[in-house]
Amino acid sequence: MPRYKLTIEYDGGPFVGWQRQGFGASVQGELEAAITRFSGETVTVSGAGRTDAGVHAEGQVAHIDLSRPWRTDTVRDAINAHLRPQPISVLAAEAVDDAFDARFSAVKRHYRYRILNRRPPAALDRGHIWRVPKPLDAAAMAAAAGVLVGRHDFTTFRAAECQAKSPVRTLERLVVIADGERIAVEASARSFLHNQVRSMVGSLVQVGEGKWTADDLAAALEARDRTRCGPVAPPDGLSLIRVDYGETARPPAP
Amino acid sequence: MPRYKLTIEYDGGPFVGWQRQGFGASVQGELEAAITRFSGETVTVSGAGRTDAGVHAEGQVAHIDLSRPWRTDTVRDAINAHLRPQPISVLAAEAVDDAFDARFSAVKRHYRYRILNRRPPAALDRGHIWRVPKPLDAAAMAAAAGVLVGRHDFTTFRAAECQAKSPVRTLERLVVIADGERIAVEASARSFLHNQVRSMVGSLVQVGEGKWTADDLAAALEARDRTRCGPVAPPDGLSLIRVDYGETARPPAP
Repeated sequence: MPRYKLTIEYDGGPFVGWQRQGFGASVQGELEAAITRFSGETVTVSGAGRTDAGVHAEGQVAHIDLSRPWRTDTVRDAINAHLRPQPISVLAAEAVDDAFDARFSAVKRHYRYRILNRRPPAALDRGHIWRVPKPLDAAAMAAAAGVLVGRHDFTTFRAAECQAKSPVRTLERLVVIADGERIAVEASARSFLHNQVRSMVGSLVQVGEGKWTADDLAAALEARDRTRCGPVAPPDGLSLIRVDYGETARPPAP
Repeated sequence: MPRYKLTIEYDGGPFVGWQRQGFGASVQGELEAAITRFSGETVTVSGAGRTDAGVHAEGQVAHIDLSRPWRTDTVRDAINAHLRPQPISVLAAEAVDDAFDARFSAVKRHYRYRILNRRPPAALDRGHIWRVPKPLDAAAMAAAAGVLVGRHDFTTFRAAECQAKSPVRTLERLVVIADGERIAVEASARSFLHNQVRSMVGSLVQVGEGKWTADDLAAALEARDRTRCGPVAPPDGLSLIRVDYGETARPPAP
């Protein structure tokens, strides 16, 4: 069966998350329903990252199998036509080898977390940014972020319900970029634990507010104790930006 | 009576526009209601630009008179507290002289129009950008924009219901900035006619799609004929970015 790689943008606000649940609309479920409406087939959309409720994506990746070949532009446009009015958009559809698996072939996932550091609430970016009213020391956050980079046991930064077998992950990149009242935290790794990015961001904000030093952050990491994590950042500011693959499905340059 | 200058951000999506109408929620009406809830006073909020339904603002400016003096931070925070859950946010409140009038003291207004030039619909920026599926020649648009800069009779680019006495305006700046699949059109002038920016953008898109040349745009301008305007761009992509004031608007030194 022909396999297609889909690159997908969505506003996570109205959904229970990427994954189908027993209740509510999911991004996966809406995609599957749209694909059925266009092709008549019942498919499973397998995603690279299971984003939580309220988390967005600029470049989620998924794969589907269809029983007959279609032009890739037709796959993209037909799914989009049947997704309306949901805030989900298939940016690209590509024919890929059967060996391609959106989840297991991924070699790197890139997330961005957006903070609005000002007292007035966000009106234009509401639901897409975390407004933190206390002034943040972005330089201190940037310096402290280095503590978390590398191969570590991230138990402290892992949701209680995380189902990964091991809490060990290699965080390849964690940078803090300040631009006026906006602060972005960018994180890259082969894979992340459940709530890992939001947990790290919440703890970095403790540093930014002057409540923690970089040493406190290092101690929290070394404790391997969930109760030592800072308050987890809300989902609104988080977006799955891009997923990288090896030779079998190299995505377009960002 | 103490006068305050307010700088305001809003998502125009849910509103009938800036101005109070006989129906529906307006930005002005929501602000007035919030000010009454905080101060007990009935006020008129006078805005610098009467944005249409669906048009946004990053930096609308308005003034209000209150019967007693307040700390400016209190004015800002109290209005914001009473605006919830509306997507309107007062970014700053400043004490200004009685001579300051948000509308009549303004010396320059800056608008930005955002275009998403790609086939897949916008999911993340829906309601905040105009998706144009046909490939646009942004360089041709940028070159043609120069035709409109300067002092002209803008009758062609003016809504039928425009109430301005004269159709003559001096367009100080009109630039087209391309960044990948995003194209921004930035326009600055002391004042604009009703629908002028959206009319100019719609006509520039005719150029971008290759339907018009820059000479066609010049001929449309010179015709001073509304029927010669390109299809008016939708409100979604438009935002009032900033309003500039001269010396009279300078708030008193602290």
